[in-house]
Amino acid sequence: MLIEAGLLLIPLVVGLIFHEQASVRAFLITVCVTAAAGGLLLLVKPAANTIYAREGFVITGLSWIMLSLFGSLPFIISGQIPNPVDAFFETVSGFTTTGASILTDIEALDKSMLFWRSFTHWIGGMGILVFGMIIVPLGGKRSMHLLRAESPGPSSGKLVPHMRDTAGILYGIYITMSALMLVLLLAGGMPLYDCFINVFGTAGTGGFSNHGASIGFYDSEYFEVVIGVFMLLFGVNFNLYFLMLLKRFRTALSSEELHWYFGFVAFAVITIAANINSLYGSVHQAVRHSFFAVSSIITTTGFGTMDFDTWPQYSRTLLVFLMFVGACAGSTGGGLKVSRVILLQRTVKRGMRRMIHSRSVGSVRFEGRMMEEDTINACLNYLAVYCMISVASVILVSLNNFPLETNVTGVIACINNIGPGLGMVGPAGNYASFSMLSKLVLSFDMLAGRLELFPVLLLFYPSTWKRG
Amino acid sequence: MLIEAGLLLIPLVVGLIFHEQASVRAFLITVCVTAAAGGLLLLVKPAANTIYAREGFVITGLSWIMLSLFGSLPFIISGQIPNPVDAFFETVSGFTTTGASILTDIEALDKSMLFWRSFTHWIGGMGILVFGMIIVPLGGKRSMHLLRAESPGPSSGKLVPHMRDTAGILYGIYITMSALMLVLLLAGGMPLYDCFINVFGTAGTGGFSNHGASIGFYDSEYFEVVIGVFMLLFGVNFNLYFLMLLKRFRTALSSEELHWYFGFVAFAVITIAANINSLYGSVHQAVRHSFFAVSSIITTTGFGTMDFDTWPQYSRTLLVFLMFVGACAGSTGGGLKVSRVILLQRTVKRGMRRMIHSRSVGSVRFEGRMMEEDTINACLNYLAVYCMISVASVILVSLNNFPLETNVTGVIACINNIGPGLGMVGPAGNYASFSMLSKLVLSFDMLAGRLELFPVLLLFYPSTWKRG
Repeated sequence: MLIEAGLLLIPLVVGLIFHEQASVRAFLITVCVTAAAGGLLLLVKPAANTIYAREGFVITGLSWIMLSLFGSLPFIISGQIPNPVDAFFETVSGFTTTGASILTDIEALDKSMLFWRSFTHWIGGMGILVFGMIIVPLGGKRSMHLLRAESPGPSSGKLVPHMRDTAGILYGIYITMSALMLVLLLAGGMPLYDCFINVFGTAGTGGFSNHGASIGFYDSEYFEVVIGVFMLLFGVNFNLYFLMLLKRFRTALSSEELHWYFGFVAFAVITIAANINSLYGSVHQAVRHSFFAVSSIITTTGFGTMDFDTWPQYSRTLLVFLMFVGACAGSTGGGLKVSRVILLQRTVKRGMRRMIHSRSVGSVRFEGRMMEEDTINACLNYLAVYCMISVASVILVSLNNFPLETNVTGVIACINNIGPGLGMVGPAGNYASFSMLSKLVLSFDMLAGRLELFPVLLLFYPSTWKRG
Repeated sequence: MLIEAGLLLIPLVVGLIFHEQASVRAFLITVCVTAAAGGLLLLVKPAANTIYAREGFVITGLSWIMLSLFGSLPFIISGQIPNPVDAFFETVSGFTTTGASILTDIEALDKSMLFWRSFTHWIGGMGILVFGMIIVPLGGKRSMHLLRAESPGPSSGKLVPHMRDTAGILYGIYITMSALMLVLLLAGGMPLYDCFINVFGTAGTGGFSNHGASIGFYDSEYFEVVIGVFMLLFGVNFNLYFLMLLKRFRTALSSEELHWYFGFVAFAVITIAANINSLYGSVHQAVRHSFFAVSSIITTTGFGTMDFDTWPQYSRTLLVFLMFVGACAGSTGGGLKVSRVILLQRTVKRGMRRMIHSRSVGSVRFEGRMMEEDTINACLNYLAVYCMISVASVILVSLNNFPLETNVTGVIACINNIGPGLGMVGPAGNYASFSMLSKLVLSFDMLAGRLELFPVLLLFYPSTWKRG
């Protein structure tokens, strides 16, 4: 909370720069309230000092919700998003790096407000990187072990200082990449303010823009290539960058997840370009638009240049499929994650092998090591929970009586933290017309998707709150 | 094959009754060809007499495809469905009791052809009942064990004669229920020919009708109630009827699957009736239409009275959800099956319990017994395969450039063996306009869904055909 109050000072400064008085006041009030709440919580002495798995999950789930509640205050106080549910939706969408918006006219907002809105993406992205270290992508303790095993020095025995080190290194990579991207955009002649907004949206794989037309506003191939490439880079497992820092390039580049990730991208870019070629006249233009859309969707960013909702069905369907796949584990992107897709595919293959040779047990290999049964089961379990939450959400959202395609892709876009779906929530649309209930359901989906489902689900599971 | 040739004599007789010369000739040729092929196969001596699991799966998968190929001959030879792919699609749809049709004008066909088309449902339904005994619903050997444990007499030790006994009893129940339904329909004044068609469609939970307007043609509440109730009855696990025959009513009625099944039905009927109430003026009419649609969809039959494609989104969405759920295991219905849905839900719950009490192992109980981990994993594996086949099919079908809703619900309706979906393939539409590739993909989906995915998938898996 105290950190959030500190971070809120940054848009406050932006507000001062642009002389936006009402917004500055709103930020000031929020800073005070948030800091006070944080101070109060510090005074509450915990009954016990040990944190078990259950408490860990609950703390994670609750703190994201609290962050979003307090983060939505500036929008409400300044009256720029007067409805609290709308403001909550927008802030959850920011922190979870989803990028789904209820704003019909983005440009009408104060610059400092839009700055805060995009800044939540960047903060959220940092949160995910550390979260990905603790509650681990594949459900086992793999990723943390990976980091522990790879990092040098005597600290590898002590977990807490070590985790701080690792977090520091991840943040270092994150900030360096963001800075590099900022410089490249500036070099292309983008205004500094826009650069910040777009870097925030890209680094967190969020997708909030300060223009209604998103990246299409600039109509610049240079910007599209820079943003497109950086979206893909932020969708890569950060452990690989970590390995590269340790000069272990061979290990990093031999990652199976990386190969599949770029394999998906290449396949989608080529086939979609072929599919939309007739719309844009030249192969060059088709590849340009296809590349940006694929990169934006598979990394679950959600920036737009062209309205892919108007593309032929093959392209639309493949993009929806990429929404499910999502980015790599350990990145700022959302979705099922490439590694889970690989694991599921291999598990299915093993299932077939077992049917043929009824006595064979078989194993699933991934990244060169044998997967434990626990990891596989966690992954299958994840898929089951994912399907159930999606089905329940679609049924609840369908009460709006909007077209099925809008409801289904809206839920998919939220649970996978993408932002735009198809139909009414397509790149040219927004979530404004949904009912309050739907917005809360979709906010839940965004949080559930972001926190790998279980922490958020546990909050609604009665025996979580029982003693013992 | 020889049995199929024998069964083909029945529509031949129907053709003779209605003086349809061309059709009679087509059936005659098919009977000869099929009998000849069957005779030839009898002459081929197998290299080995033992049948392993792999061979079992392959034989099952291939025999359904062969049955469909030969079963489509009458349509092709008579010229009533001249295109072989269309005829194959229609026959697969029949044998798998799906009920998806490529016919735009059903009434134009000869009566004997329509009789054969619906008769395939009834044959398919019988096939499923026995198949469900061998390759077992939940992936374990539960159902067979259940039957073996419950059946009396000294035969329980010997598997083969015992299985024949069980099959005989199941067929007895199936034929008795069909006959009862026939009598009830006749008593309501339905023409005998129509009675047969509708009994075939209901018993196999298929859904082919001899009228373009399906059951809506009669506009009779009596017929709707009879058919609606019998659809639900044919969607119940046949083991329960078996138990009732053994006078073990308490065991039968305490089945958890049964409770959930009727729970789903009750919930859907009530909420959909509330949702469509304003469309039909009176509660009575709303419940009438809601009951028929829910019963038709959850049992994966696909008969229609009203065009539910025009209903509000909540109703449409819930019906799509029921398409996934499907009927009970061990019935003639398709879908994921109610028991799998229960098992998945419990596994997810266990996953949450494990997160809270990190050291607890936990177990999943179903129908009063503890589920083995193998059964749970098989069920999760099933879900994964199911998702993958669906995604791949939707992408392939999207090449037609039809609306996403049509493609998605078309694939769902085929893989779950329902028949009608939404949009272009809704109750008022058909599958005629799909490309040849799509029809083959959808035929594959129907077979895969019917045979519980794995046997059909194995046919396309290279190492199935390797020696060893």
